[in-house]
Amino acid sequence: MRLVVIGGIAAGTKAASRARRVNPDLEITIYQEEPEISISECGLPYFLSGVVENRDDLIARTPEKFAEKDVEVLVRHRVERIDPENKTLTVRDLGADEDFEDSYDRLIISTGATAVLPPIDGAELDGVFALRFLTDAEAIMEYIRERSPERAAVIGGGYIGLEVAESLKEIGMDTTIVEVDDRVANAYGSEAAEKVAEHLKEKGVDVSTCERVDEMVGEDGRVRAIRFNGEELEAELVIVGIGIKPCVNLAKEAGAEIGPTGAIRVDKYLKTNLPDVWAAGDCVESLDLVTGEPSWVPLGDTANQMGRVAGTNAAYGAAGADALQFPGTLGTGVFKVFDLGVAKTGLSEEGAEEAGFEVVTGALEAVDKAGYYPGAGSTFIKLIADGATGRLIGAEIVGASADKYVDICATAIWGRLSYPDLVNLDLAYAPPFGPVLSPIIQAASILAGEFEKKTEGVRAAE
Amino acid sequence: MRLVVIGGIAAGTKAASRARRVNPDLEITIYQEEPEISISECGLPYFLSGVVENRDDLIARTPEKFAEKDVEVLVRHRVERIDPENKTLTVRDLGADEDFEDSYDRLIISTGATAVLPPIDGAELDGVFALRFLTDAEAIMEYIRERSPERAAVIGGGYIGLEVAESLKEIGMDTTIVEVDDRVANAYGSEAAEKVAEHLKEKGVDVSTCERVDEMVGEDGRVRAIRFNGEELEAELVIVGIGIKPCVNLAKEAGAEIGPTGAIRVDKYLKTNLPDVWAAGDCVESLDLVTGEPSWVPLGDTANQMGRVAGTNAAYGAAGADALQFPGTLGTGVFKVFDLGVAKTGLSEEGAEEAGFEVVTGALEAVDKAGYYPGAGSTFIKLIADGATGRLIGAEIVGASADKYVDICATAIWGRLSYPDLVNLDLAYAPPFGPVLSPIIQAASILAGEFEKKTEGVRAAE
Repeated sequence: MRLVVIGGIAAGTKAASRARRVNPDLEITIYQEEPEISISECGLPYFLSGVVENRDDLIARTPEKFAEKDVEVLVRHRVERIDPENKTLTVRDLGADEDFEDSYDRLIISTGATAVLPPIDGAELDGVFALRFLTDAEAIMEYIRERSPERAAVIGGGYIGLEVAESLKEIGMDTTIVEVDDRVANAYGSEAAEKVAEHLKEKGVDVSTCERVDEMVGEDGRVRAIRFNGEELEAELVIVGIGIKPCVNLAKEAGAEIGPTGAIRVDKYLKTNLPDVWAAGDCVESLDLVTGEPSWVPLGDTANQMGRVAGTNAAYGAAGADALQFPGTLGTGVFKVFDLGVAKTGLSEEGAEEAGFEVVTGALEAVDKAGYYPGAGSTFIKLIADGATGRLIGAEIVGASADKYVDICATAIWGRLSYPDLVNLDLAYAPPFGPVLSPIIQAASILAGEFEKKTEGVRAAE
Repeated sequence: MRLVVIGGIAAGTKAASRARRVNPDLEITIYQEEPEISISECGLPYFLSGVVENRDDLIARTPEKFAEKDVEVLVRHRVERIDPENKTLTVRDLGADEDFEDSYDRLIISTGATAVLPPIDGAELDGVFALRFLTDAEAIMEYIRERSPERAAVIGGGYIGLEVAESLKEIGMDTTIVEVDDRVANAYGSEAAEKVAEHLKEKGVDVSTCERVDEMVGEDGRVRAIRFNGEELEAELVIVGIGIKPCVNLAKEAGAEIGPTGAIRVDKYLKTNLPDVWAAGDCVESLDLVTGEPSWVPLGDTANQMGRVAGTNAAYGAAGADALQFPGTLGTGVFKVFDLGVAKTGLSEEGAEEAGFEVVTGALEAVDKAGYYPGAGSTFIKLIADGATGRLIGAEIVGASADKYVDICATAIWGRLSYPDLVNLDLAYAPPFGPVLSPIIQAASILAGEFEKKTEGVRAAE
């Protein structure tokens, strides 16, 4: 019984490991186009800034480690075609520059996602990069060593753009973020996004919003400026972080269904519509557990969790009651920009309104330790609830301990808790770890007040 | 309409504030026996160690602040008797040393808890203290200033004893903890407790377990040693932290029902069996949401949450569908001992077995950041699940980010999540904030493995 895994970053390697663990007899091969597998792509901004010094630290497991577990890894091998009827693959050995045929009994597609490059003049110039793979990071670092750029432009103010902007600023470059939308961190509401923008300003990063870059201006084949709004901004290094898209061509050409998000459609067992083909990771669509609609959440932790499910089910060929399920996602995420933690889970206020919820929110600025305990930091919390049921459906958090508070909210949404649960929730308290009532409970009290105002609650009875 | 609140620490002041907020016309008086109200008792160990320098920082709101909101606060006033039929109180003015009568329309009892003192010879000696009130902390500090004790003994290795031991060690005393049980932190299982003991040792605190103190040995009316196991341990300062008990005499004498835990019995609206009398805080029993049994959780955060509910309901006189409910507690708690966070929620393995659960556990040692990110710390996590349903019913966490992980578990237990939820839970990931899969998810995977081994799961099908 032969399992082939296409793609060896987060989902693919996790799936292969898990398949090996539950089925020692399986023959397992991972094909990976890039020269490395098992890379922490989320660590790349920290490699760029030097916070992570050693590239090998970003590699969780090498092909040699997989070989010890009897998992074959072939890097620089690109799968060009899947024939789902005959269960065969056409594979290109990029080193030898030749094709060969392989076959599978079970297949896992984990082809990931790739950076979107803007269709603007000059995008091909030297000094213009995306940051998606380790090879990208190394190319950027080599360019910096050779050319010593003093000014950098980051196109796109999403979390990758913001992390990269921090990295470039930290290594001494004048850095400007150019964002087409009206705010950076535009997955967040305006209060949260404003706090991010303020922090960037404090740290000396320039931000231009509502600006579409028209052109990258070159000289001798190298970028020297970007042009937007009729003006030129000098920049000897440009990083494009305008987004990523799922790599689905291979699956699509083989007949795999693609969902409305543009990613591969799977059932709750992560099985595609093709026989004995599962899919996992950034190339796959999931279910938004708040809206019940398809969603696409290309994040490393989700990819790992999907890999566990797909690997187990593919190893057993399971697809019924015995199979593991991947229920869906909440879009939970956190990023750091300089000293600020920025996190969200579930829907934004805007997103909730678009999804048809009657939205009630509660927001506050709180401290993350007892007020008298040294080192307390400030945190903005906004809870977003469904007005009809009182259920928590989203949260945005900016500041100290954002990572802690967002996980409480994510777990609460998963458990379908509503505001009366949240105000009474039995969280842990001691002065070094929080104020007597967790900021989440404080925010929930404000939310409860909004509900009481709104409904025939105890307050309105007065 | 007159509301009287007996006791003004956490629950009482919260209840009064909340009552004022929802009903501006109410006449409100708080009677408080101690000279201060609204003290953070949880902050006392940090006042003792000097981490908190100013005593006033521990006072959240003064009587003057309450006066601004038209809430009368009478400190050094002890309520001696409640007459529930006539709705009158006998109050002793401790300053004037005289009694007077007062009356109420609605009453909230928040008389708190008091330190248990051991019935052993020498407990009355100078230099022997409990640490429960600000006055205790000040007396200890004065004694230290006057007598410069070099050696301290802390009797009792629960969280208060451990926090105090840290404080005394930090200000330079040789410190020994003497615990009657076989381990310190005995609300925790042996693995967790062992980690606490190791850490104390590293920090130079001596620990003697399985030792009952027989006598405190004095000289000139002052303690100079404690005697246990036939030997004397020199100690010029002794802090007794063997536990606390609810202050229920006043309520009991008035006819309030006392529950099996020894604390005041209330319904889910925090109403006692007496007409128009509510109760909140450390003197009150709650419902353990895991076992469904009465439990007693004397903690500051719970007291605040109860105060909110009792204050609202007393202000409205509500006790039906309109009233706020306090559903119960999980026994969630966290404490710091030197550099170690120690936290739990729900049942311990032992407690779960005693409660009749068939217990399945998953434990691991994890790191709290991406392995390659600087500053990652180590954390022990043990998840405790109900073997029959797969539900999480407890967690113990010792180490870095313990406060973060315990709140995820507490929220999961509240939301009745089981291990398949936990392995797929959509928590937040970025390298500065955690490994790609949260340690909670990793522990849940181990738990899932135990269930798979145990049941007709996918693994057993092999």
